[in-house]
Amino acid sequence: MIKRDLGMSELESSGYKCIALRLLQEANCQVGDIICITSKGKTYEGILIPRSELGNATNIIIKMKNGYNVGIAVSEGDIIEKVGVGTKPMFVSPALPEQNSVLPHVVLMSTGGTIASRVDYRTGAVRSAISASDLYGVVPELSEIARVDTEIVFSLYSENLTPKNWTELAQKVADYIKQGVDGIVIAHGTDTMGYTAAALSFALQNLPIPVIFVGAQRSSDRPSSDAATNLIGAVKTAGEASFAEVGLAMHETISDSVIAVHRGVKVRKCHTSRRDTFKSINGFPIAKVLNQEIILQTHDYQRRDCSKQLILKPDFCEKVALVKFYPGMDSSVIDFYVNHGFRGILLEGSGLGHVSMFCFEAIKNAIAKGVIVALASQCIWGRVNMNVYDTGRDLLNLGVIPLDDVLPETGLVKLMWTLGQTSDIKEVKQLLKINIAGEFTSRTLPQEKTAYGAQ
Amino acid sequence: MIKRDLGMSELESSGYKCIALRLLQEANCQVGDIICITSKGKTYEGILIPRSELGNATNIIIKMKNGYNVGIAVSEGDIIEKVGVGTKPMFVSPALPEQNSVLPHVVLMSTGGTIASRVDYRTGAVRSAISASDLYGVVPELSEIARVDTEIVFSLYSENLTPKNWTELAQKVADYIKQGVDGIVIAHGTDTMGYTAAALSFALQNLPIPVIFVGAQRSSDRPSSDAATNLIGAVKTAGEASFAEVGLAMHETISDSVIAVHRGVKVRKCHTSRRDTFKSINGFPIAKVLNQEIILQTHDYQRRDCSKQLILKPDFCEKVALVKFYPGMDSSVIDFYVNHGFRGILLEGSGLGHVSMFCFEAIKNAIAKGVIVALASQCIWGRVNMNVYDTGRDLLNLGVIPLDDVLPETGLVKLMWTLGQTSDIKEVKQLLKINIAGEFTSRTLPQEKTAYGAQ
Repeated sequence: MIKRDLGMSELESSGYKCIALRLLQEANCQVGDIICITSKGKTYEGILIPRSELGNATNIIIKMKNGYNVGIAVSEGDIIEKVGVGTKPMFVSPALPEQNSVLPHVVLMSTGGTIASRVDYRTGAVRSAISASDLYGVVPELSEIARVDTEIVFSLYSENLTPKNWTELAQKVADYIKQGVDGIVIAHGTDTMGYTAAALSFALQNLPIPVIFVGAQRSSDRPSSDAATNLIGAVKTAGEASFAEVGLAMHETISDSVIAVHRGVKVRKCHTSRRDTFKSINGFPIAKVLNQEIILQTHDYQRRDCSKQLILKPDFCEKVALVKFYPGMDSSVIDFYVNHGFRGILLEGSGLGHVSMFCFEAIKNAIAKGVIVALASQCIWGRVNMNVYDTGRDLLNLGVIPLDDVLPETGLVKLMWTLGQTSDIKEVKQLLKINIAGEFTSRTLPQEKTAYGAQ
Repeated sequence: MIKRDLGMSELESSGYKCIALRLLQEANCQVGDIICITSKGKTYEGILIPRSELGNATNIIIKMKNGYNVGIAVSEGDIIEKVGVGTKPMFVSPALPEQNSVLPHVVLMSTGGTIASRVDYRTGAVRSAISASDLYGVVPELSEIARVDTEIVFSLYSENLTPKNWTELAQKVADYIKQGVDGIVIAHGTDTMGYTAAALSFALQNLPIPVIFVGAQRSSDRPSSDAATNLIGAVKTAGEASFAEVGLAMHETISDSVIAVHRGVKVRKCHTSRRDTFKSINGFPIAKVLNQEIILQTHDYQRRDCSKQLILKPDFCEKVALVKFYPGMDSSVIDFYVNHGFRGILLEGSGLGHVSMFCFEAIKNAIAKGVIVALASQCIWGRVNMNVYDTGRDLLNLGVIPLDDVLPETGLVKLMWTLGQTSDIKEVKQLLKINIAGEFTSRTLPQEKTAYGAQ
């Protein structure tokens, strides 16, 4: 086994050991080189990148042409060949590539989360945010798609973000739009990315350019990371898409080929760990990105037009509660919110829009005290229809506002936003019924039927 | 237009009017006759049944051979032919068919809901429960599948059922099992049927026979009703299936051909209105019913064995709350529950199992006061893993109990059930971690990967 005399080799400090290290050393490969691995009858080509301490010690991690990282477990007899000397990844030796002034100008705002966190391969510590140079290092393809500037806005796990952060984020976006950028990407933890995307959909009206959220389910130091392909899809969309809406770009399936760009108000995190965790609910993605091509999925979108004047409405009321109904629910929780000065309650009802009759008194009292009570369905898919059964009609008579096919999470955010705009109850009710950002899907869409389930 | 002189004709009192009435009268058809309709180049054959006041006035409703009702909008020139005189539907002239003593003995317990409600065609009033004769009237095929006895246990919309009803229902089931019946079907409103199915899964252990929940998304007086096919699937399963578990039988897709029998602890209502609203989450149905044949989907089930001694544990604690986390959530709602003597809180966290750090203090205080705090994911699909990120690890350190891949709704019911069994906190924690009724799915199931999304 070849060993350097003085300290660790660069391959070692990049996490390689055992047979993986030896085979790479024998082939004279360094991190950043383009290498070709033939293992178990298959051949893989890509840029050699550092590996994390996690996972199989015999893995060699390469970044494939499609931007995706794969780990190949090598064994005795596998052939490794250096086929080119690539750019070194920037986390080894940061340096910004030259920016091509013909490309669109995209700002990447980082709020934290998996996509913005990386293991530092030298120290093992987790860095909580990415810099522009990190970004190009991890995803060199970006330099061919856009001129990307980055700003670290927050470094927070998304579960710790609050409506105050939504306000700040919306204001930052408005500032960049004033500066004339071509698109904005917001890197965000996936846990509450759907809520924030909905929030910015209401806060940023008449958008001239796209604002695209992006996250990762696996951090970029893991071979199965979705960070690179998601980022490429998001930056491409922000820089070039013909629509100007708040979107959310993530893997469409577990395969690495297609990125779906969902509408911010219609998207929901539906799986704890899968890369295709985000789904458009009661609707379809606005676009898909395949082989760096943006393929529109609808004609019904707001157009990109840099002459459009952004209308910024960034305020949210935090005195709004989400109450998910369940059998045996104690209705005194509704009284609790009323007594604590809450101005809105989003009921997550059952089925077509029901809660137990044992809650009617508390709801009646809440509404009498000026609290706005709106209702969306915990089914998640489908449309609230409170005219079918007695329970629904009773709730309508009490003054509960049905939110049609709006997601409960989006309904909550809309209620927070609406109560941030006005104190006039009549106006609040009106705003709740208006389609502000595509949160209501038309009943006449025949495709709606196929957007549910595994058919 | 032919009109009878004295009062309404039977066709009229069965809801027929306009051209539909005229064409039926001209062909000398009565409700109950087997008729053949040729309309727009297509031919339909089935038993003429009454139509409801809702829907297209030109519709003629026939019950097809597959047990399904269809509405055919007729127009001038369509041909209607009487091809046979069928049995009159029982809601017109109730009479129990002879029961075949060779068939399995199934008890149908009715709790209310759409499946148990029907419009009375003579008065227009909604009847809130079905009797045995109604049942055979609506679904004559049942008499060839089982000897069915019925009992009206409740006549409630399911959103009004509480854990007390679960207890009563479990006790009734136990009584029937003592009497030696071959299977039990529970007709239930769909809104909270998943919760009740989970409840009975925990309350009825070591079942000797199947206990199958069934509902309908469209009432049996509507042409698109799923009541008949769901009932046939449920009764068939209860009477003959080789497994003895709590299941839930509903349409697998919007087509009328397959009934999926889901495990009670893994099933969730996922669409407000579609007939295939129930989905097995993080798992697969136990069985499917196709052309009255039960096709098992797994080898991993509890076997039917009439020598098994049922273990009845019907108690539930109602002092358990479900708290769904969202950005900006005011943690004082946790204090509220603690101060009001609640013994358990099911947190519906984000992603892999997180809530905001702003909730940590309240959670710590709750646990210090002996409240059990368990966590499931609002993603719905996937598995909680609280070891990946700091937030999860912090919550574990506080003493929060992760519920792996258990549905939040099932987790809530399990917490209610567990606290109904014992006051010993150690025992409660242990019970929460034990797989009582198949609520945890093994990690090693390769199919799990395909149980999510539209791949």
